[in-house]
Amino acid sequence: MAGRNENTLKDLSLLGNQNTKYLFEYSPQVLESIDNLHSNRDYFIKFNCPEFTSLCPQTNQPDFATMYISYIPDKKIVESKSLKLYLFSFRNHGDFHEDCVNIIMNDLIELLDPRYIEVWGKFTPRGGLSIDPYCNYGKPGTKFEQMAENRLMNHDMYPEKVDNR
Amino acid sequence: MAGRNENTLKDLSLLGNQNTKYLFEYSPQVLESIDNLHSNRDYFIKFNCPEFTSLCPQTNQPDFATMYISYIPDKKIVESKSLKLYLFSFRNHGDFHEDCVNIIMNDLIELLDPRYIEVWGKFTPRGGLSIDPYCNYGKPGTKFEQMAENRLMNHDMYPEKVDNR
Amino acid sequence: MAGRNENTLKDLSLLGNQNTKYLFEYSPQVLESIDNLHSNRDYFIKFNCPEFTSLCPQTNQPDFATMYISYIPDKKIVESKSLKLYLFSFRNHGDFHEDCVNIIMNDLIELLDPRYIEVWGKFTPRGGLSIDPYCNYGKPGTKFEQMAENRLMNHDMYPEKVDNR
Amino acid sequence: MAGRNENTLKDLSLLGNQNTKYLFEYSPQVLESIDNLHSNRDYFIKFNCPEFTSLCPQTNQPDFATMYISYIPDKKIVESKSLKLYLFSFRNHGDFHEDCVNIIMNDLIELLDPRYIEVWGKFTPRGGLSIDPYCNYGKPGTKFEQMAENRLMNHDMYPEKVDNR
Amino acid sequence: MAGRNENTLKDLSLLGNQNTKYLFEYSPQVLESIDNLHSNRDYFIKFNCPEFTSLCPQTNQPDFATMYISYIPDKKIVESKSLKLYLFSFRNHGDFHEDCVNIIMNDLIELLDPRYIEVWGKFTPRGGLSIDPYCNYGKPGTKFEQMAENRLMNHDMYPEKVDNR
Amino acid sequence: MAGRNENTLKDLSLLGNQNTKYLFEYSPQVLESIDNLHSNRDYFIKFNCPEFTSLCPQTNQPDFATMYISYIPDKKIVESKSLKLYLFSFRNHGDFHEDCVNIIMNDLIELLDPRYIEVWGKFTPRGGLSIDPYCNYGKPGTKFEQMAENRLMNHDMYPEKVDNR
Amino acid sequence: MAGRNENTLKDLSLLGNQNTKYLFEYSPQVLESIDNLHSNRDYFIKFNCPEFTSLCPQTNQPDFATMYISYIPDKKIVESKSLKLYLFSFRNHGDFHEDCVNIIMNDLIELLDPRYIEVWGKFTPRGGLSIDPYCNYGKPGTKFEQMAENRLMNHDMYPEKVDNR
Amino acid sequence: MAGRNENTLKDLSLLGNQNTKYLFEYSPQVLESIDNLHSNRDYFIKFNCPEFTSLCPQTNQPDFATMYISYIPDKKIVESKSLKLYLFSFRNHGDFHEDCVNIIMNDLIELLDPRYIEVWGKFTPRGGLSIDPYCNYGKPGTKFEQMAENRLMNHDMYPEKVDNR
Amino acid sequence: MAGRNENTLKDLSLLGNQNTKYLFEYSPQVLESIDNLHSNRDYFIKFNCPEFTSLCPQTNQPDFATMYISYIPDKKIVESKSLKLYLFSFRNHGDFHEDCVNIIMNDLIELLDPRYIEVWGKFTPRGGLSIDPYCNYGKPGTKFEQMAENRLMNHDMYPEKVDNR
Amino acid sequence: MAGRNENTLKDLSLLGNQNTKYLFEYSPQVLESIDNLHSNRDYFIKFNCPEFTSLCPQTNQPDFATMYISYIPDKKIVESKSLKLYLFSFRNHGDFHEDCVNIIMNDLIELLDPRYIEVWGKFTPRGGLSIDPYCNYGKPGTKFEQMAENRLMNHDMYPEKVDNR
Ligand SMILES: [Ca+2]
Ligand SMILES: [Ca+2]
Ligand SMILES: [Ca+2]
Ligand SMILES: [Ca+2]
Ligand SMILES: [Ca+2]
Ligand SMILES: [Ca+2]
Ligand SMILES: [Ca+2]
Ligand SMILES: [Ca+2]
Ligand SMILES: [Ca+2]
Ligand SMILES: [Ca+2]
Ligand SMILES: [Ca+2]
Ligand SMILES: [Ca+2]
Ligand SMILES: [Ca+2]
Ligand SMILES: [Ca+2]
Ligand SMILES: [Ca+2]
Ligand SMILES: [Ca+2]
Repeated sequence: MAGRNENTLKDLSLLGNQNTKYLFEYSPQVLESIDNLHSNRDYFIKFNCPEFTSLCPQTNQPDFATMYISYIPDKKIVESKSLKLYLFSFRNHGDFHEDCVNIIMNDLIELLDPRYIEVWGKFTPRGGLSIDPYCNYGKPGTKFEQMAENRLMNHDMYPEKVDNR
Repeated sequence: MAGRNENTLKDLSLLGNQNTKYLFEYSPQVLESIDNLHSNRDYFIKFNCPEFTSLCPQTNQPDFATMYISYIPDKKIVESKSLKLYLFSFRNHGDFHEDCVNIIMNDLIELLDPRYIEVWGKFTPRGGLSIDPYCNYGKPGTKFEQMAENRLMNHDMYPEKVDNR
Repeated sequence: MAGRNENTLKDLSLLGNQNTKYLFEYSPQVLESIDNLHSNRDYFIKFNCPEFTSLCPQTNQPDFATMYISYIPDKKIVESKSLKLYLFSFRNHGDFHEDCVNIIMNDLIELLDPRYIEVWGKFTPRGGLSIDPYCNYGKPGTKFEQMAENRLMNHDMYPEKVDNR
Repeated sequence: MAGRNENTLKDLSLLGNQNTKYLFEYSPQVLESIDNLHSNRDYFIKFNCPEFTSLCPQTNQPDFATMYISYIPDKKIVESKSLKLYLFSFRNHGDFHEDCVNIIMNDLIELLDPRYIEVWGKFTPRGGLSIDPYCNYGKPGTKFEQMAENRLMNHDMYPEKVDNR
Repeated sequence: MAGRNENTLKDLSLLGNQNTKYLFEYSPQVLESIDNLHSNRDYFIKFNCPEFTSLCPQTNQPDFATMYISYIPDKKIVESKSLKLYLFSFRNHGDFHEDCVNIIMNDLIELLDPRYIEVWGKFTPRGGLSIDPYCNYGKPGTKFEQMAENRLMNHDMYPEKVDNR
Repeated sequence: MAGRNENTLKDLSLLGNQNTKYLFEYSPQVLESIDNLHSNRDYFIKFNCPEFTSLCPQTNQPDFATMYISYIPDKKIVESKSLKLYLFSFRNHGDFHEDCVNIIMNDLIELLDPRYIEVWGKFTPRGGLSIDPYCNYGKPGTKFEQMAENRLMNHDMYPEKVDNR
Repeated sequence: MAGRNENTLKDLSLLGNQNTKYLFEYSPQVLESIDNLHSNRDYFIKFNCPEFTSLCPQTNQPDFATMYISYIPDKKIVESKSLKLYLFSFRNHGDFHEDCVNIIMNDLIELLDPRYIEVWGKFTPRGGLSIDPYCNYGKPGTKFEQMAENRLMNHDMYPEKVDNR
Repeated sequence: MAGRNENTLKDLSLLGNQNTKYLFEYSPQVLESIDNLHSNRDYFIKFNCPEFTSLCPQTNQPDFATMYISYIPDKKIVESKSLKLYLFSFRNHGDFHEDCVNIIMNDLIELLDPRYIEVWGKFTPRGGLSIDPYCNYGKPGTKFEQMAENRLMNHDMYPEKVDNR
Repeated sequence: MAGRNENTLKDLSLLGNQNTKYLFEYSPQVLESIDNLHSNRDYFIKFNCPEFTSLCPQTNQPDFATMYISYIPDKKIVESKSLKLYLFSFRNHGDFHEDCVNIIMNDLIELLDPRYIEVWGKFTPRGGLSIDPYCNYGKPGTKFEQMAENRLMNHDMYPEKVDNR
Repeated sequence: MAGRNENTLKDLSLLGNQNTKYLFEYSPQVLESIDNLHSNRDYFIKFNCPEFTSLCPQTNQPDFATMYISYIPDKKIVESKSLKLYLFSFRNHGDFHEDCVNIIMNDLIELLDPRYIEVWGKFTPRGGLSIDPYCNYGKPGTKFEQMAENRLMNHDMYPEKVDNR
């Protein structure tokens, strides 16, 4: 079996649409999903997002991060162009690093009702320190709930080398 | 014991054959297998495939990825030149990233009936984001079914650094 | 839900305050906390601190380290600017490498009563050797106590390459 | 001789001032300079600016770059906090990559009248390609004019490896 | 001075146009140029193109390369989306590695009449060897002609490490 | 306790012997072992062998690999110079990648009767693909048998980046 | 609590003492210990020792290694300058790679009676091969005995890349 | 202009020919050339050859190297498959490192009469030392003769880091 | 000729002296020199100093840098332990980045009267930017004066990648 | 022409000789040379020597370095095994870093009378600083004398990153 046909693409309003409008205020409504053609199988999809930027709520100074979003879909997968627009919408939005990753995960849970999801933000330093918050989630009442706890308890035992250069 | 003799190679139509024809439309029929000489033992074979390219089904734009295919064979192993031709056959074929890895794995399961298999695609970015889908499979009713679940649940807890450069 | 409002920031005396005074003698009292807005969820916050410096208690010679501090908050999270000031306060303070990581962890436990915390110091070499002490802690009587033991028992099985250059 | 005294700092309105206002529209007027204490000597100052972001003038999509700004000062050096604010002011401003580096250099020439200056922008990819424009300048009628030509003619003979990951 | 206005963009048929058609046969006519706003100054523009793929003229097997294209513009700069389409048009075109870089440079000279240009292709290995051809050009009768000769004569004195992994 | 005395070295025919003869046809008989002085303890010995080369049985073309051999000894350890000679003996021998690692492991099991052993070959690419087979073994009826199964089931969950350069 | 006072340092004969004598014959008696101030807690101390050198017992040729020593202390911690002197004392001592790591671990067990300890030596190549022996130990009759077995059974599943350059 | 036609390929006996015979004794006669289609222009072609292996003439022990061959063609370019076969022919041939690079360059000068050529061999270590010989050549009586001298006199002023691991 | 004898060491008050006192206020008087035994020859000595730290004169916040000091000695070379103490003396001293490198170079010129010297400071970021000042000097009236100008004019044409992580 | 014959090897007393005696006191007499077969040509030979160790003349503490020795031979080339033994002979010899590189170069000039030679030592840190001395030489009265001056004047304009880890 191979090849997305037109039916599986009919929900897709953004990809290939030239009138894309970039929103720079927090806009969860821009997120869109499409059907998961392989819902009979548990598998992972990871998004690498090195161009995340938001504002510090206190100082209004821009913050920069790479976001790693990884999930096991259930019935829906996130459409990648809408995810891009959603992440761009944090551009002029103020929130702490710890809040950003939780909000992004909450919005994707709301959209996709995934079996499992995790979000890891790796921010550039302010004042000589950098902050890397990480949250995850497994659908309550399924084996993925335990999976989430296990992954959290074994999270990041080999922190990457950071020297601020 | 050492050295493939001619018997074990008689099924091999491609390797060393000069009339190889490169197909650039999805062609699962090109895949060939040869005998596994070590089927008494569970062991791993990994293929690193940094030259995978396909087309986006919506925009018809080329996509690029490195595919990592890793499996524990049962009676058969995939012949490497036929795998190369099979992967080349995605060159002008349109499908989403998430679908490509599932299709490749499905086709290799069909060919090899392996004990275990996994496929990880790492794509170059589009719109500032890159997508890395991963799927796996263990033969139902064997210990490899549980192995597949365990590996999925512990998948990629240390995402590689991606900065789009 | 999104955006820290003013209420959640009212405890914050340092961020954005121009009269910051840098203390260079061990000053645990400088540490401040703010509310954790996501205490319904277990999640990780990591601080990368590559600019730690203290003095050797015997020779009075400066020591240098990168500190990695990682924790699962309970009701409180540490305010990052206060953490910076706290770490700066070791600048003219004398203690062995092994003691510094334990003291930092003790002070953050006192401040935050976290569910889980760990501190890893990676020091530059003296006499051709470098020392990397690591300690951790899980709240007694919770699952995090067992988590701490498990992480310690599986700590650093892949030591990073160190060649003193 | 050592230590900036108060006289040399009196022009400095931003450093240590808490009422900093972040401007997100192109604002060359925010740039400030201070005296060069070593103008008897030719020497280099380099700024590494990995958090530059602007908007594409056609698509309004965010662009990301690392800017490397390097110069030999004459009477004045740029105050680093004002340079930060200036670069942040491109955040919601639309211009092509090639234009951004020329504009930044023009504004710093206007501010500092430097002996020599160069600006190199390294942007993240769009459509699978990335663009790295570079411009430089030597004060006309001095040896630095020839220096600029020589450096341009020998520019980037070892392009860094770029693989979009 | 800052900001491309509409006048400078009027020649641009591709950027932001949704009806982009991807051509997979060699198509130099797809290349487009726009005005260089800084033609009073010599400066460099580099394109990093890690997704180049063509076909071997003898075996019809796909070849893969990263192309580095760097030039000093005169009156015109190449529009980046048209360059992308042009490079994609080699996808099903057969030519030797050495020929590809020369053809690309010839076509860009024809389009842009640049002051200086160079093209470096770095191909993945075939049969254990990889080939990296490099060509350059300076406008005849100008100082850039000598510049081209100088750069060629000092080309790649520090070959990058290549180990086929 | 310290220092190998002459008794423990008396079986050693190769180390320091100038009449070493290099065999370039598969020669398992060249392998030699010496006593393990620490057989009361389970511990690991790893050999890194980046200079392995054999011939493809079909095309007679040279293949190249790095072999990683790791084992827990029982009564005997392999003498390193004899292992070098053994690996050199594949130089003009033809076998598939998958077979080489199994043969090497079989021969070392025969020689050493180890508690545990594993062999991982990482080959350079042919036709754009590279192959990395891995096999392991635990002595039947001991805890090392289960250890081998566990390691296989958790093998290589973080495949190294391979880009054929 | 913070700061080593004089009492905890009174056993320390070497640190800050100018009459240090470097011994270049195996000298376990040079090792010294000091009190562990945090014996209520299990925590790790790692020493990175990239300047280890010994002699081959057969050929008398110098061998070079990086030693990684990691342990959980009980009542005592090793004084770092004495460890440096101890490791230097292998300089003119002859022993096989496999023996060196076992001897070092035995001597530190004798000195410190630690809860857990491990030693990993990574040697430079001889004859194109390099050897990396690893041993560990947990105090018999405690949970650390099981910890040692678990760590050994999961040792080094991701061997570092070694290419002899 | 684009695309090799059949005329330019008629001299090519090896590429795509299935009856390739691999010679493992020094065989300069296997080298073949094809027409340079761009002889009006000076440009560089580099071959990266990480799979070179020969034998030590004294000890008969295998040596391993990466060969970097770079040249400016005149009327002819070397056919890549014949170069591969030629390099393979050193497999069982004995010569010192310094001699190998000179011989390879001599044979390519004989074949191609190039304007400029250089060969750099980077060998793996023997006895803790590694050797990297480099030679070059410019056609006598042309500007390339001076170019060769200039490149030699500025050769390798930044030796790569080598640590034998 | 080999081996420092006692005469050449008689000026050396610090090396091996246990009463070393660490000064943390700018102390150029701590610098000491010894005789250059090879003053008949021009040669380079470089100091890598990754543990430099000073204070910002405005904010009193600690700054961190790696200092690279490189010189051609005349009659004297700097004694390395005294250089260490001198650099430590900036620990509680306030000065701008641009001033620190100039001051260090001035003090070493005063001490050594070197033929040539250069100082490059690479600082960690503040506010998302980092600063790398570089100064140099050649003895007036000698060829080293021209050498200094040449090196400055060709300084840092390949800025290292900086991404603040 | 290819292959060292017996005549060119007759001077070679060490290579393949089993009675090699390792000397650990400075022994320049151990150096041996063989004929340069390519003396009609100027070419480079580089030795990478990462296992150099000597003693500090004041403290008697071991020092460690990587030595890079690079030269253009005249009539003789150094035999590599004798160079290894010579470098090993510094093992128990005391001298400053600056002196070691000058002594090594002097001894090789004495042995080989080379056209050009340079020696760069890169030492591991002591007290947080590391020292990298570099010296070179061109045969007086030849073009290589000027070459040496030119290389010295352009030495190390891109110091490698050193962070003591
Ligand atoms: Ca860094
Ligand atoms: Ca970095
Ligand atoms: Ca990257
Ligand atoms: Ca990359
Ligand atoms: Ca990248
Ligand atoms: Ca590589
Ligand atoms: Ca590669
Ligand atoms: Ca690679
Ligand atoms: Ca390699
Ligand atoms: Ca290395
Ligand atoms: Ca190393
Ligand atoms: Ca290596
Ligand atoms: Ca980064
Ligand atoms: Ca380092
Ligand atoms: Ca660092
Ligand atoms: Ca290092």
